[in-house]
Amino acid sequence: MSVQSSVALWDVFEHKINAQVPGNPYTDVSFWGVFRQANREVRVPGFYDGGTSFIVRFMPDMQGEWSLETVSETSALNGVTATFLVTAPAEGAHGPVRVANRFHFAYADGTPYFPFGTTCYAWTHQPLAMQAETIETLRKTGFNKLRMGVFPKDYPYNTNPPLYPCFLMGPGGTEDFDRPNPEAFRHFENQVATLRDMGIEADVIIFHPYDRWGYADMSEAQDNRYVAYLAARLAAYRNVWWSLANEYDFLLNTKPMRQWDRYFHILEENDPYRHLKSIHNGDVNANYDHRHPWVSHVCIQNWDVKKTQEWREAYGKPVVNDEPEYEGNLIQSWGSITAEELVHRFWLTVMRGGYAGHGETYVDPDDLIWWAKGGKLHGEAWKRIAFLRQVIEADVRNGLTPLGDSGGFPWSRVSGARDDGVTYIYFGEHQPVEWTSGLPKEDGDYALDLIDTWNMTIQPAQRIPARIPHPTRHGGVTRGGKADAAFGVKLPGKPYLALRVRRI
Amino acid sequence: MSVQSSVALWDVFEHKINAQVPGNPYTDVSFWGVFRQANREVRVPGFYDGGTSFIVRFMPDMQGEWSLETVSETSALNGVTATFLVTAPAEGAHGPVRVANRFHFAYADGTPYFPFGTTCYAWTHQPLAMQAETIETLRKTGFNKLRMGVFPKDYPYNTNPPLYPCFLMGPGGTEDFDRPNPEAFRHFENQVATLRDMGIEADVIIFHPYDRWGYADMSEAQDNRYVAYLAARLAAYRNVWWSLANEYDFLLNTKPMRQWDRYFHILEENDPYRHLKSIHNGDVNANYDHRHPWVSHVCIQNWDVKKTQEWREAYGKPVVNDEPEYEGNLIQSWGSITAEELVHRFWLTVMRGGYAGHGETYVDPDDLIWWAKGGKLHGEAWKRIAFLRQVIEADVRNGLTPLGDSGGFPWSRVSGARDDGVTYIYFGEHQPVEWTSGLPKEDGDYALDLIDTWNMTIQPAQRIPARIPHPTRHGGVTRGGKADAAFGVKLPGKPYLALRVRRI
Repeated sequence: MSVQSSVALWDVFEHKINAQVPGNPYTDVSFWGVFRQANREVRVPGFYDGGTSFIVRFMPDMQGEWSLETVSETSALNGVTATFLVTAPAEGAHGPVRVANRFHFAYADGTPYFPFGTTCYAWTHQPLAMQAETIETLRKTGFNKLRMGVFPKDYPYNTNPPLYPCFLMGPGGTEDFDRPNPEAFRHFENQVATLRDMGIEADVIIFHPYDRWGYADMSEAQDNRYVAYLAARLAAYRNVWWSLANEYDFLLNTKPMRQWDRYFHILEENDPYRHLKSIHNGDVNANYDHRHPWVSHVCIQNWDVKKTQEWREAYGKPVVNDEPEYEGNLIQSWGSITAEELVHRFWLTVMRGGYAGHGETYVDPDDLIWWAKGGKLHGEAWKRIAFLRQVIEADVRNGLTPLGDSGGFPWSRVSGARDDGVTYIYFGEHQPVEWTSGLPKEDGDYALDLIDTWNMTIQPAQRIPARIPHPTRHGGVTRGGKADAAFGVKLPGKPYLALRVRRI
Repeated sequence: MSVQSSVALWDVFEHKINAQVPGNPYTDVSFWGVFRQANREVRVPGFYDGGTSFIVRFMPDMQGEWSLETVSETSALNGVTATFLVTAPAEGAHGPVRVANRFHFAYADGTPYFPFGTTCYAWTHQPLAMQAETIETLRKTGFNKLRMGVFPKDYPYNTNPPLYPCFLMGPGGTEDFDRPNPEAFRHFENQVATLRDMGIEADVIIFHPYDRWGYADMSEAQDNRYVAYLAARLAAYRNVWWSLANEYDFLLNTKPMRQWDRYFHILEENDPYRHLKSIHNGDVNANYDHRHPWVSHVCIQNWDVKKTQEWREAYGKPVVNDEPEYEGNLIQSWGSITAEELVHRFWLTVMRGGYAGHGETYVDPDDLIWWAKGGKLHGEAWKRIAFLRQVIEADVRNGLTPLGDSGGFPWSRVSGARDDGVTYIYFGEHQPVEWTSGLPKEDGDYALDLIDTWNMTIQPAQRIPARIPHPTRHGGVTRGGKADAAFGVKLPGKPYLALRVRRI
C-alpha cells in the first residue's frame, strides 16, 4: 500500500469525490467511508457538499497507516479508496474531550480538561469583521468552551439578518429544508476549526426555539436528516460537543420528547467518535432526564448553584451549568446579575464539584451583546473566571470532589472540595475569622494560601491551633470537645475568600 | 356583684391564694380558675408559686365585669371567688398576635403585625446589668419579636453560669425537676412583661439540646408537667409565642416525635388564649410537619431563602424563618455571613411573602455575643432591618402576596410582592437598567420610588414607556411583541435596590 497523504492525529482527514448525481443528493444519496487500520474498521458517514462534491471526513485516533474505502448504492461513490498516514498530534492537540472520573472531563490523551465556557449564541452569523473581533476577544480570555448555535437566532437584541441562509432558497422565497447551503455550513465548520486551533471546545447547539426562518419548524424527517448531516460534517472536528438544544422544553409543542431521544440516537449512529452529548433546559424545573445512557454529561441552566452537588448525585455524571444567569443589566432577569455574583456562582459551582458557564449581557445602543453576537467584552467577571481556571489547573488533576454530603453541615452553607494533595474551601458570603472544617485530620507539611476571588490575589495564610469547641451535652451524649482538624487557619473576616491547602 | 379590682384589656389579672398544702404541690395539686362574663366561661390553669402561694392568671379579651371561681380537689383552693372590671386597653396594647389572612399576622384588635425578630437565646440568664443593657439596645432597634429560651444554654460562647437554677436544688447537688424554682420563673416572666410593654413579642423556646443541667434529659412526665406549668404561668402575657424547641430534631434521640406532638396538645389544653405555636428545626431537611392543625405558623431555620414561597405553598401558613444564618464572623458557618447578605436575605424573604429573623454573632473576647446573651449590637444589619420594617408598615395592611408562582419567570430570580395599593420588586443581585414585569397592567396615577436597601434611601423613580420586546417565534406561535405592563421604570443599574409602586 502506498500512502497518498498524511494527517496529524486527531486532525481532520478529508476525502472528496466529484460525481454527477441526478436528483437531490442530500435526500436521495447516502455513502459511507470505511476507515481501516490493522483489524480495526471505523464506519463514517459522508455528505453532499453541493455541486458535484461529496465528502467524507475522518478524525483518526491512532497514528500509523490507515486506508479508506467508500460504500454507497450510488456507483460513483462506491469503492473509492485512499490511504494515508496519521502522524504525531499537532502541538497542543490532545484529542476530543471525554468524561473522566465520573464527574469530570479529560482529553483523549489523558490531559485533564476543566470546562470554563462562555456563550455567543449567534456569533457565526454576524458580519465577518465582528466574528474576527470575537476571536480576538476570546484569545485574551481564559475560556476553553464556547456555546454557539448552528442556526441564527431571532430574539430580543438578536434581530439583524444572518450572514448566510442555512438552507438554499426555494422557489417560494423561503428556505428549502431539503437543500442545505454548503457555504453556510462550510463557514460554520471553519469557525469550529478556528476555535479548535485556539484550544476552545465548540459546544454546538443543534436546535433552539428563537426562530423566524422556520428552522425550529422543520418536519421530523428534516430534523433527523439535519442531525445526521451535522454529524457527517462536524464530528471529525475534535473540539465538537453536541448540545441538542438551547431550551429544548420551549420546543416541546412541536418536537415531543421521543424526538429528542431520537436525535441523541442519530448522533450515536453517525458520530463514530462519540463526542460529548447533552441538552439544555429552559425552565429550571424541566431538566432532561440526564440519567439516560446516551447523555454524556448534565447540561443545565439554573441560577441556584448551591444545588450543584444535588445534581451530581441525581444524575451521576459531570454537571455543566451553562447558564447560572449572566453578568449584565438587561431588563430580562436571566441577564442582569452583577459581575461579583457571577464570579461567586462560578466558585460555588466549582467548589461543589461542577462546572459553570459565562455569558455577558450589558445593554448596548447597537444591540452588540457578547452573549448573542460576540464582539467585545465589557464586564468584570471574565477576568476572575480566567483566574479561577488558573487556580484549578495549577493543582487539580482528577477533578474536584465536594468535601461533604450535599445536605451536610457545614458544606451546604460554605463550599469545599478536594483532589489528591489539594483542598479548597470557598467561604463566599461567609466571613469567619478562623476555620478548621475540611482541613487535614493529621498534621504534616501543608502550604496554606488565602485566595481573594475578586481581587485575584493569593497570599500565604496563617496556621493557628485548631479550635477545641466547647462540648455540648444532652441525653447522656456529649458532642464537640475535640477539634475537627489537626490545625486551624486564621482568616481576615472578609467575604469572597477561598482557602487553598496543599500538601508539600 | 361588687367589683374588687380592675385590669386593662389584654393585661394580666392575677389572683393569689395562700394555702398550706402538704407534700409537693407542683406534682400533687391541680387547681383551675373559671372566669365568667355573661354566658361565657374560660377555664384557666393555676400554678404553685412556692411557699404557701397559689396563683391563677388570666388575660381578659373583653371589657366589662368578670368573675372568678376556683375549682380544685384541694379544698383550700376550691370555690375561691373574686370579681373584677376589665377596662380599656393600655396605650399601645393591641392584644395577642394571631394568624391573619392565612400567611400573615395581626393583633387581636386587627392592627397588622409584621414580625421582624431577633435572637438572644439566653439573655434572661445573664447578669442583671447585661439584661438591662439588652433592653436598652432593643429600644433603639426596630425588632418586635425576640427568640429566647426558658432554659439557659450550654454551648460554645455560652459557658457562664446562669443567674438562677430553673429548679430547686435536690439533696444530691443536682436540680430536682419536680420542684421548679419560683424565683427563676418569676424573673423570666418579668422579662417577658418588660418586652410586652416595649411592644416586643416573646418567642419563648421551651426545649433545646444545649444543656449541662439535665433540662434536656427530664422524664416524659416531667416534660409534660413543665410545659403545662409554663402555660399556667405565661399564657396570660399577651406577647407570648410558644416555640416548642430550638432544633427539636437534635433532641429526637431522647424525645421522640410523639412527645413533640404531645407538647403541642398540652399547650392546647392549658393555654386558653391559643397563643401562636410552632417548632424550629436544626437540620434544613428536618422541618417539623407544620401542616398539623396544632401548628399556627411555620418556624424554620434555612439559609436558602429564595425557597420562602415554596414553604408557604407546602404548609399553607405564615412562614417565619428565624435563622437564615446570622451576621457575624464565627468559625461556625451559621454565624458568619456579612451584614449585606443578611439584609439581602431579609428582603428576599419578605418579598416572597415570609418573615425573617435576625441574629448577630461577632467574635468577642469575653464571649459577649448578642445571639447568645444580648448586650450590645456591633453590626450593620439591624439598622437596615428596622428600615425594612418601616417601609413595610408604611403601606402594607393585609400582608404581602408574591407576584408569581414560586417556580415562575421572572419571580424565581427576582422577588416581588404586593398588597392592596402597593407593589414591591426587589432586585437583589440583579441590576437591570429598566423594568416592567409586575408593574401595573393598566395605566393610572402611581408613585414610583426606588429604595436603596443598604443605604436606606427612598427616591422617586423615573417612569418610562414600557419596553415592547422583540417577538420570538417558532412552531406557528409568536411570543412577546407586547409589553407586560402599562409603563416601565428606569433603574440605575446597581444591585440591592427595590422598587415601590403605590397607587395615588
